[in-house]
Amino acid sequence: MAEFRRDPITGRWVLLAPERTRRSRDFTPPSAKQLDPANCPFCEGRESIAGHELLSWRTHGTPADSPGWDVHEVIIESPRHTATWSTLAPEEIWRTLWAWRERIRDLKKDVRLNSFVIIKNHGIAAGAKQDHAHSQLFAYPFAPPALELELASAMKHYIAEKRCLFCDVMQQEIDANQRVIAADDQTVILSPYAPRLPFETWLLPREHASNFEDSSDTLLSALAARLHDLVLRLDSLLLYPPFNLVLHTAPVKDELRPLYHWHLEIVPRLGPRSGVEWGSGVYVNPVTPEEAAHELRAG
Amino acid sequence: MAEFRRDPITGRWVLLAPERTRRSRDFTPPSAKQLDPANCPFCEGRESIAGHELLSWRTHGTPADSPGWDVHEVIIESPRHTATWSTLAPEEIWRTLWAWRERIRDLKKDVRLNSFVIIKNHGIAAGAKQDHAHSQLFAYPFAPPALELELASAMKHYIAEKRCLFCDVMQQEIDANQRVIAADDQTVILSPYAPRLPFETWLLPREHASNFEDSSDTLLSALAARLHDLVLRLDSLLLYPPFNLVLHTAPVKDELRPLYHWHLEIVPRLGPRSGVEWGSGVYVNPVTPEEAAHELRAG
Repeated sequence: MAEFRRDPITGRWVLLAPERTRRSRDFTPPSAKQLDPANCPFCEGRESIAGHELLSWRTHGTPADSPGWDVHEVIIESPRHTATWSTLAPEEIWRTLWAWRERIRDLKKDVRLNSFVIIKNHGIAAGAKQDHAHSQLFAYPFAPPALELELASAMKHYIAEKRCLFCDVMQQEIDANQRVIAADDQTVILSPYAPRLPFETWLLPREHASNFEDSSDTLLSALAARLHDLVLRLDSLLLYPPFNLVLHTAPVKDELRPLYHWHLEIVPRLGPRSGVEWGSGVYVNPVTPEEAAHELRAG
Repeated sequence: MAEFRRDPITGRWVLLAPERTRRSRDFTPPSAKQLDPANCPFCEGRESIAGHELLSWRTHGTPADSPGWDVHEVIIESPRHTATWSTLAPEEIWRTLWAWRERIRDLKKDVRLNSFVIIKNHGIAAGAKQDHAHSQLFAYPFAPPALELELASAMKHYIAEKRCLFCDVMQQEIDANQRVIAADDQTVILSPYAPRLPFETWLLPREHASNFEDSSDTLLSALAARLHDLVLRLDSLLLYPPFNLVLHTAPVKDELRPLYHWHLEIVPRLGPRSGVEWGSGVYVNPVTPEEAAHELRAG
């Protein structure tokens, strides 16, 4: 039965329209078209064409803009062209999270900048222009629309309830235990109540925290392990799908600290988006989050 | 130079980021993967598997659910499997517009329904599940988000100015003469000020009209000719791109008549959408609307 659901955080409408209980095995992932690595500007040894180095994880004291780095910016996540989050070790993913944190911390010193969004496009079908594992940091002088939508709901909830909306949703999900994929004392991973696309997955820190860039090294370690495990599960269940990963963290405003909760959104891209979303602004999703969580727990 | 623009109608943000003045010839259109026509449920002769016929353009008095139709519902636009809007005659496109109009008129009798959106997905990369030319009518018990966004702006403008926002934008575009692709006494075709994707194109009736389904046969004829010409131009300029077409018409509410203006939005799908749009809600468009209009006028 088709069912309209409204996301409690963004207010976005989703039509859950399971097609004969479509499961993960029914998706044909888009071909992971490989680009020619010979000219990849992100590979070790091609620092001269990659642009100027701002931050680098250098263990051997090598100079900037030369080989020897591990994490680089527009954040290049590994010197190896074929590395992905499932073949990287959790420690290597940790270094990417470290670079995200350090770059946001540094950019916050620029008073013109208000909001930071980190995006990882994995695979050409997810909009990546380069195969080489990388993520991008976007800085805005305003809160961009996707963040504004979340902030508006979070503020409304905080005014009414004096509690963080994300903390409340997380607790409800843990109690309901239908859409939680994994939970420990540091993080909760779940299929949201009204997912826009099949197997959309959210990761939130268990303890209230508005800003990712305040995360401790220990929290980043837990995150890296969880993300590595999640990407392995997605790869095994959906056969190496292209995906987008998004980091939402609070804009630079102290009054948002009690009411916003940073989080990651991971969305496999299993097919083209249709005109329904374009024309109506309603997402049509053939996989229920209960089914997705069930498959990802088992995977 | 990159430039942030906000659409005056929806309030949506777009980052125009021309990449070395990227033009139409720089796009590689997604492969127009053809599905196997042998089992197409929309072809003439397979009416028994297409579902029940609601409305059909029948010139020869043949019975329902049998061969002999020209336009069918989930609106099948031609009995010929390989027909597209550039190979159909304008009269055949007229019959599709006629079917849209008649089906909306009929569905409006159902008091539970409030809003109607018509969507055409052309090509697999635009989300089409079938190659066979077709469009879909979606009926909602509420105004879906994309429509609500337009209605909110239109209402605000009407309260302040006592004029239709769309009429004002259209007049400004005609005066500025930078983004108009074609204009006559019946229709205006333009590249909007803040297009979300390259070569996004809008078509509006020149005279104020809130509801598409009130259109006369004569207006539908002018529309069909304009749409046929536009799709020919897109095909020639962008090499047969997949595209989405959306019809926005006012919800069932008489007080919206003076302030809303029905229109069509046509969006070629030249590449995957990236995580930036997903994560920030900001569209990044490498082609300025001035350049797009220039190329479409010349094409």
